[in-house]
Amino acid sequence: MKPKIGFIGVGIMGYHMSQHLMKAGYQVIAYDRIKAATDRIVALGADEGLSSKDVAARSDVVITMLPDSPDVEAVALGPDGIIEAAREGLIYVDMSTIAPGTAIKVAETLGEKGVRCLDAPVSGGEVGAQNAVLSIMAGGAADLLEEVRPILDTMGKTVTLCGPAGAGQTVKACNQIQVALNFVGMAEALVLGAKAGVDPAIIIKVLSGGYAQTRVMDVRGPRAIKGDFEPGFKSAFHYKDLNIIMQTATDLHVPLPATAVAHELFSALMAHGRGDLDHSAVVTILEEMAGVEARTKEE
Amino acid sequence: MKPKIGFIGVGIMGYHMSQHLMKAGYQVIAYDRIKAATDRIVALGADEGLSSKDVAARSDVVITMLPDSPDVEAVALGPDGIIEAAREGLIYVDMSTIAPGTAIKVAETLGEKGVRCLDAPVSGGEVGAQNAVLSIMAGGAADLLEEVRPILDTMGKTVTLCGPAGAGQTVKACNQIQVALNFVGMAEALVLGAKAGVDPAIIIKVLSGGYAQTRVMDVRGPRAIKGDFEPGFKSAFHYKDLNIIMQTATDLHVPLPATAVAHELFSALMAHGRGDLDHSAVVTILEEMAGVEARTKEE
Repeated sequence: MKPKIGFIGVGIMGYHMSQHLMKAGYQVIAYDRIKAATDRIVALGADEGLSSKDVAARSDVVITMLPDSPDVEAVALGPDGIIEAAREGLIYVDMSTIAPGTAIKVAETLGEKGVRCLDAPVSGGEVGAQNAVLSIMAGGAADLLEEVRPILDTMGKTVTLCGPAGAGQTVKACNQIQVALNFVGMAEALVLGAKAGVDPAIIIKVLSGGYAQTRVMDVRGPRAIKGDFEPGFKSAFHYKDLNIIMQTATDLHVPLPATAVAHELFSALMAHGRGDLDHSAVVTILEEMAGVEARTKEE
Repeated sequence: MKPKIGFIGVGIMGYHMSQHLMKAGYQVIAYDRIKAATDRIVALGADEGLSSKDVAARSDVVITMLPDSPDVEAVALGPDGIIEAAREGLIYVDMSTIAPGTAIKVAETLGEKGVRCLDAPVSGGEVGAQNAVLSIMAGGAADLLEEVRPILDTMGKTVTLCGPAGAGQTVKACNQIQVALNFVGMAEALVLGAKAGVDPAIIIKVLSGGYAQTRVMDVRGPRAIKGDFEPGFKSAFHYKDLNIIMQTATDLHVPLPATAVAHELFSALMAHGRGDLDHSAVVTILEEMAGVEARTKEE
C-alpha cells in the first residue's frame, strides 16, 4: 500500500507538486497557513489538514514546501508543529530552499524523536513544478532516499544524493551562486556593450554561440534585451537565497567576494520594488548605474 | 587572383592561423619581432617580411595577431609600421584582443591614408586556431567584411559583424566579462560547497545538469576539481583582457562591480605567479582565502 503523504505549504510550488502526487495515486493530506491555499487543493481531492501537527499525525511521509528557514523551523519544531506528532517510522522531507544549518538542526532535533529526515530542495521553478521536471538535491541517508525516491520521482526529473543532512541545501546554495553570477555577468556585458554602442542582440548572439554560453542567457537573454522581465523566478526569491548563502558563508568563514556583489545588486532590486520581476532584471540596476538601456533595436 | 596576405605576429595563435591561409592557397608574407617565430613560418612556405612596413608594402591585406593594445599601436602607427606603407586600397585586419578605443584610433588614423580597417578579435584560443574554428567578432564596414570574409573563413567557424570600428573589440570584451564571471561563479560555488563538506564532483554534476549550466563548467569543471589547470587559455591573457575591460569601463563611465572583483581575483593569480595556468585556476585563490581545497575524492 502506498504511504499517506502530508503536504504542508501548498502555495505556487506546492500546489503543482501535491497534484502530481495525487495523480500518481497517493493519498495527500494538505495544509497551508493560508486557508484558501489549503481549500484549493482539497477541492482537487486532498484531505484537509488542520495544522502541521495534525498532518504529521495522519501521514507516513510529511513533505514541506515553504518560503524560508524560519517557516520550516516553525512548522517542524514549533508549537503545533511536526515535532508534536513525531514518532519512530515517520519520514520528513523538506523541499523548501533554506539554510543548510537549519536543515541540519531540524534533522537532528526530529531525529532524536525517531523521525528520519531528508532535505530535498529543488530547482526548476514553477514551470518545473508544473511539468514534474524539477531537479531535486537531496541530503540525508542513502537508504532513506531510496525509500522515498518513488515519491520524489513523481515531482522531479533528476534526484541526486548530495551527502548527509544539509548537503542538499548546500548544493542548492551553490546552484544559486552560479545562477546569480551568470545573470550578473550577462548584465555587465550587456551594459558595457550598450554604452559602447553595440546592439545587445549581437552580444547575446555571439556570447551564446561560444565559450561564454550559459543556460540563463539562452533562456532569458533574448527576453531581457526586449525589457521582458516577467518571471520565471522572482528576484525576491533569489535575494532570499543570496541572504541564506551569505549567512552560510559567514558562518563557515568562506569569503565570496563576487557573490557578495551579486547580493548587493539584488538588494538594489528590492530597494526599487522589483522583487516580483524575474532575476534577469538585475540588468536594470546596472543600466541605471551606467545611464544606458541595453535594449535591442531589432524586432 | 588571390590577394597577398601579410601576417604580423606569428606566435602561438598566428602560427596556426597563418598556416590555414597557406593551406587555402594564399601567399603569406610573415613577420614577427621574434626572428625564430618568423623563421618557423618561413620554413613552412611563407615569404619573410623584414618589418611591419615591409610586410604592408608587399601585401594586399595585412593581418596582425599581437599580445596587447600597445603592440598593435606600435605595429600599425609606429616607426617602420604599417602606416609608413599606407596607401589607397590596402586592407588592415587586426585580430588581436585590444582596447576598443585603440582599435578606433588605429582605424581612423590609417583610414586618413586610404587604408580600410577591420577589428576582428577571436575567441576559441589555441585549439580554435589550430582547428580553424575560431569565433570572429568584426568591427568595421559591412562591405569590407564581405570582401575579406573568404580569408577569415579559412581561420574561423563563425564571423559576426558587430558594428563599426571598435565594435568587434567591444563584443570580445563583453565575452571576456561573461567568461570571467562564469569561472568566478563556479569557483565560489565549489569553495562554499567544499567547506560545507560536499564532494565538488556532485556540485559540478548537479549544476551542469540545470539552470546553472555554463560552457566553461562543462569544459573545465571536471578538470578543475582534479586540480588540472593546464591551459586552455592562460590566466595572464584573461588578466590582460580584464585590464582592457576595466579601462574601457572607466573611460565610458560604466560601473562593473562584479567584473571589478573578478579583475582583483585574477590580479591575485598573477601575484602568486599563476599566469601560465588556465583561467579556471581562479578557484585556487578562493580556496586559499577560505582555507579549503575543492578537490573531488572520486577517481
